[in-house]
Amino acid sequence: MHSKVQASVALENKRVEVREFDFPAIPIDGGLLKVEKTGVCGSDWPYFLNYPKSKGPLILGHETVGFVSAIGANAGARWGVQEGDRVTLEEYLPCGHCTYCRSGRFRLCDATDTLIGNGIRYGSTSISVAPSLWGGYSHYQYLHPNAVFHKVPPHVPAALATLALPMGNGLEWVCFQGRAEIGESVVIQGPGQQGLACVVAAKEAGASCIMVTGLTADHHRLSLARELGAHHTIDIEQFDLLETVAELTGGHMADLVVDCASGGPSTIVSAIQLARKGGRVLLCGRKGRPVPEFDSDLLFRKNLTLKGLRGHSYEAVEMAMQIIASGRYPLEKMCTHTFGLNEVENALHTVGGEGERNAIHCCVDPWL
Amino acid sequence: MHSKVQASVALENKRVEVREFDFPAIPIDGGLLKVEKTGVCGSDWPYFLNYPKSKGPLILGHETVGFVSAIGANAGARWGVQEGDRVTLEEYLPCGHCTYCRSGRFRLCDATDTLIGNGIRYGSTSISVAPSLWGGYSHYQYLHPNAVFHKVPPHVPAALATLALPMGNGLEWVCFQGRAEIGESVVIQGPGQQGLACVVAAKEAGASCIMVTGLTADHHRLSLARELGAHHTIDIEQFDLLETVAELTGGHMADLVVDCASGGPSTIVSAIQLARKGGRVLLCGRKGRPVPEFDSDLLFRKNLTLKGLRGHSYEAVEMAMQIIASGRYPLEKMCTHTFGLNEVENALHTVGGEGERNAIHCCVDPWL
Amino acid sequence: MHSKVQASVALENKRVEVREFDFPAIPIDGGLLKVEKTGVCGSDWPYFLNYPKSKGPLILGHETVGFVSAIGANAGARWGVQEGDRVTLEEYLPCGHCTYCRSGRFRLCDATDTLIGNGIRYGSTSISVAPSLWGGYSHYQYLHPNAVFHKVPPHVPAALATLALPMGNGLEWVCFQGRAEIGESVVIQGPGQQGLACVVAAKEAGASCIMVTGLTADHHRLSLARELGAHHTIDIEQFDLLETVAELTGGHMADLVVDCASGGPSTIVSAIQLARKGGRVLLCGRKGRPVPEFDSDLLFRKNLTLKGLRGHSYEAVEMAMQIIASGRYPLEKMCTHTFGLNEVENALHTVGGEGERNAIHCCVDPWL
Amino acid sequence: MHSKVQASVALENKRVEVREFDFPAIPIDGGLLKVEKTGVCGSDWPYFLNYPKSKGPLILGHETVGFVSAIGANAGARWGVQEGDRVTLEEYLPCGHCTYCRSGRFRLCDATDTLIGNGIRYGSTSISVAPSLWGGYSHYQYLHPNAVFHKVPPHVPAALATLALPMGNGLEWVCFQGRAEIGESVVIQGPGQQGLACVVAAKEAGASCIMVTGLTADHHRLSLARELGAHHTIDIEQFDLLETVAELTGGHMADLVVDCASGGPSTIVSAIQLARKGGRVLLCGRKGRPVPEFDSDLLFRKNLTLKGLRGHSYEAVEMAMQIIASGRYPLEKMCTHTFGLNEVENALHTVGGEGERNAIHCCVDPWL
Repeated sequence: MHSKVQASVALENKRVEVREFDFPAIPIDGGLLKVEKTGVCGSDWPYFLNYPKSKGPLILGHETVGFVSAIGANAGARWGVQEGDRVTLEEYLPCGHCTYCRSGRFRLCDATDTLIGNGIRYGSTSISVAPSLWGGYSHYQYLHPNAVFHKVPPHVPAALATLALPMGNGLEWVCFQGRAEIGESVVIQGPGQQGLACVVAAKEAGASCIMVTGLTADHHRLSLARELGAHHTIDIEQFDLLETVAELTGGHMADLVVDCASGGPSTIVSAIQLARKGGRVLLCGRKGRPVPEFDSDLLFRKNLTLKGLRGHSYEAVEMAMQIIASGRYPLEKMCTHTFGLNEVENALHTVGGEGERNAIHCCVDPWL
Repeated sequence: MHSKVQASVALENKRVEVREFDFPAIPIDGGLLKVEKTGVCGSDWPYFLNYPKSKGPLILGHETVGFVSAIGANAGARWGVQEGDRVTLEEYLPCGHCTYCRSGRFRLCDATDTLIGNGIRYGSTSISVAPSLWGGYSHYQYLHPNAVFHKVPPHVPAALATLALPMGNGLEWVCFQGRAEIGESVVIQGPGQQGLACVVAAKEAGASCIMVTGLTADHHRLSLARELGAHHTIDIEQFDLLETVAELTGGHMADLVVDCASGGPSTIVSAIQLARKGGRVLLCGRKGRPVPEFDSDLLFRKNLTLKGLRGHSYEAVEMAMQIIASGRYPLEKMCTHTFGLNEVENALHTVGGEGERNAIHCCVDPWL
Repeated sequence: MHSKVQASVALENKRVEVREFDFPAIPIDGGLLKVEKTGVCGSDWPYFLNYPKSKGPLILGHETVGFVSAIGANAGARWGVQEGDRVTLEEYLPCGHCTYCRSGRFRLCDATDTLIGNGIRYGSTSISVAPSLWGGYSHYQYLHPNAVFHKVPPHVPAALATLALPMGNGLEWVCFQGRAEIGESVVIQGPGQQGLACVVAAKEAGASCIMVTGLTADHHRLSLARELGAHHTIDIEQFDLLETVAELTGGHMADLVVDCASGGPSTIVSAIQLARKGGRVLLCGRKGRPVPEFDSDLLFRKNLTLKGLRGHSYEAVEMAMQIIASGRYPLEKMCTHTFGLNEVENALHTVGGEGERNAIHCCVDPWL
Repeated sequence: MHSKVQASVALENKRVEVREFDFPAIPIDGGLLKVEKTGVCGSDWPYFLNYPKSKGPLILGHETVGFVSAIGANAGARWGVQEGDRVTLEEYLPCGHCTYCRSGRFRLCDATDTLIGNGIRYGSTSISVAPSLWGGYSHYQYLHPNAVFHKVPPHVPAALATLALPMGNGLEWVCFQGRAEIGESVVIQGPGQQGLACVVAAKEAGASCIMVTGLTADHHRLSLARELGAHHTIDIEQFDLLETVAELTGGHMADLVVDCASGGPSTIVSAIQLARKGGRVLLCGRKGRPVPEFDSDLLFRKNLTLKGLRGHSYEAVEMAMQIIASGRYPLEKMCTHTFGLNEVENALHTVGGEGERNAIHCCVDPWL
């Protein structure tokens, strides 16, 4: 047994180093999680590029699965868990008492808002904020009083369980926010782990024509999209996107378009073109720059609804864990890579497109 | 009694001329409306600029109030009206059997879509399409089998009744699409007749902080906005818009922002900035060009919903007529100008900002 | 070719006789359907018991599939079909212009309301109303100007296509009105054709625990329920219903309960007991008498929503036809019996439980 | 200053006695509220009749307004309040981590469910549960870690502030659950404080025809209903209820019916009759016995939605406090009686119809 907690700390200039931290004192309403595995989120890459500089060194990783290894006297009743429970955490640390928290939209709570507000959340909080252990690329993660837990059944492999948040995003976006319905046509732009989670969500919602777009280099991801239930995949370097969708939908175009693509704003423009009159477009990724060709008149003419979406609700993550545990999708094929604590730099570069190839969902196993 | 129908025909180069047409034969499922008054819609200006050239000469005007003066044998049962009834018409001529029509969203029907599709509708159809009388700036308007009617109570002045469509838009946008709720903060950008209709709608929805923005030259419109129920008006040439809204809402910003402004895309940018996290932004006006500063990341960060909106539902117009008839708002103050059939050119220039000053809602009385 | 239309006319005292009618004149906005097959609805039995006495002789049958064999000059544009098209009809003949029709809820239109109002509809209108041919148990059915059509793909067997309305009911109830969601627990009481349609709808909605209840005599229907996707079936003569559902749901009880059972009000009482706090209960069948044990306090204590439901929306029937045409459920196993025009009495007695055994969905083929 | 807490304890046989309790130790995540005033809820009467027997002596009262007088070190961050804050509490003590709590429906949380579950909540928990001070008819009320707070502006009289929960109920029922819309017809059965709160809610929602029913003895309450905005009141002992509503709505009947009446199930029967096709009926009161005439077929025929409702959401109470604080309704006229700590027995008998006459909303001021 270690007398210190080992964790991988993200530094400036896309560097990482393993450091040791003291085990934190367990407050009466807090606790400690022994990490099994932590998924690498697509957002870890921009976090890695920006946060060490703006916030100081930090432990990234917020798709954590593990066991409650210590728990304060008051924490169990508050969290609904006990020592030894196997759980996955959400990234949010919501205050619990604001209007957003009280009405089920705690992901918007200021206390945990690191983009607009000044909050803290798992995987994006500096080690200078005590007790430092805010990320999942670590042997242990601190359990804050406001942590949000989901139970993980024992038969689910840890790597699969780390899909709970991306899969929860897919369900939140496609089902709860996008209101995909039985028989609808859905285009999903970008076959990364988020796009693939959206395929599963669209399938669950009963969509009868699920189309996934990607580049030629994405062929293995597009192939997996079909295995997960997509009816069609479109290589946009080989085929005209609008024409293809028009043909596949009998000219109707898409009821719902989900933009999960990274790499610039052009997919927003195509998303708006792909939607039918009265349709819905979901923007699920940061673009990093304005969209100069944005044609608001097309929104107006087609009576479109455009939603910027980020994160998930509690119910979506519960639903995700149920789907993962059911085994009815070959989700294990999404779990392509596992990295040890010493390999977190590689893990991050991989998710940023600068490391291992053909990666979809990567995990860090801090005990490797 | 005239033996011909006199109508004001819009031509290229912003010109209009009164022409005579034969009374049309009344088909078994059609009819004829004797026009009382027709409202001048803000969209008449771009129609005037573009349609005579692209479609040929046409009779503009689609906010028509009048009496059913002739009716085919089968038309009454189909329309739910009889000869002599006082009615207002919607601009749409929906097919009645497509999915949009069958599900209550007939404004999206291809048969009446003149922007995306090739449909016909009142006030934007060429006189080359028989029987020519498709617009309200005329003694008589043709009643197509697919026309959509609303009854007008006898005590309502015709000028007020021509507000049914703009008021219906306001209710559709703010209440049905924007889901304004009791106690919410609403910013309405642009104090034209549509913006003022949105004030009434927000008032009806129970919004507790209604803010209307305008230019210094709009001071009389802003004053009317307050009479209609706006809690605050903001002259954006005198005050910093974002700071003012922040102050008026205690830092919360707006739950709902409605962009009814004409004159370029800058109000879209401010609309997105004015919305609170999880808020809603409605784009209710054509801009005519892209929005180069459009920041999709702000939508994403703030979990915003953006809706492009055009037109109204049947229920919204029914609701509008009920509110107009109730007399509980001083809507007669919106009705600033009435033009005769020979003055339609002036009416159109006025709504385009090139004619009479201080106009809000203008009417054409074809019998003047 | 016949010079007369043969049709099976329902008379008092549960009798039926085949009569001949003149071919009707085709009005400009009407037409004629050559019937392929017509499904026998559960409601045909109470209609059979009551309507010949209260309304006079009539042609029952409203789940009709056929070909448009004659069409008035104005009807095609109105209906969106042309001569020769293969279609299925809804039972409704909505006026088209009331608030219900204009807002997509035309099934509530007074013009077609035969229970509350005085309307006409297919399959429940007297032959004394010209031109008599209002029902599907006939060689030809009159196409009223207000008829509602759905296209039937050529590859779908006619018997399957007659499932469009019951399947549309299931989708309307479970999905649109019941808002069944991914991962929910659904109890369906009564494994008749409506209950089985609800199984398909719940499956499409992503329900993860679908339970169907029935009697011991229903064992073949319960078996088919499992083939269609039910996770569990419960013989309520062998097992305690509440205990079984509690066990199957881990004590959670059902998110949604659909009461499709005939035979008295006791299933309403159990439906309310089976729902979890905040759950939903759908009453989808006429009971014919009050529910003396109805405990409104249980609704109050559990914050339940109870909906009385009858019929379907246009979208639900479109969705149904898409699912039928997809072939992804073994719906042909529901189609157990086909009767000729001379056997309509047997068909009706069968659906009333007094004729053939083990029937689920029966059809009349008027050309047999 | 007292060295003991004085509180009014409800006992069996409709008796009450003032007792003294030790000041409780303040736990790290708890606190103490100095009560200003506590409203008397209609449910206090059945609680008074049943709970002392089934649960042992208890302090009733859950519509409490007061000042935070002591607060544990961890409680402020958890509650969003600090010592000295003026607040009103909800009756619920939700766990915070179950699906209901995480999705904004914490009123359904098992931890606070005293009707179906075994939970605790304010105003209905035995003094045998430490630290006894669970009710508002007391100098001080214990602040449990899971308490739910709303801020009370300083200018609002305490008696008015105790209307936050009944007014929150009205908003929850009529607006959030009943989805009352602009221009709708609403019948409210029973002009008690809940019925009157529903009048305000219907007014805020924009209902254009609000009808309140009552008995001849309710004439002062019906008069107040009109002052609050009801368009019509109906003395059901003088007028035929169905005929009157038919007349007032032009035969349309009510879009929404809210049953707030006590005294047996007959109002449920009339509520269902009063609703139009496709309408909604809200059951907002416990009846204590079955409804033998309950006609489920009428629900079926009219496509009605019936909701059993109890309690409120957080947003509804926030909205209620905003409306109370706005001063735009003469709510002070609802506040008819204030009782001292020694008069709680009278207060309870009054709300049960056995004490003071003409009472609407009563308060207990424990310092009188």
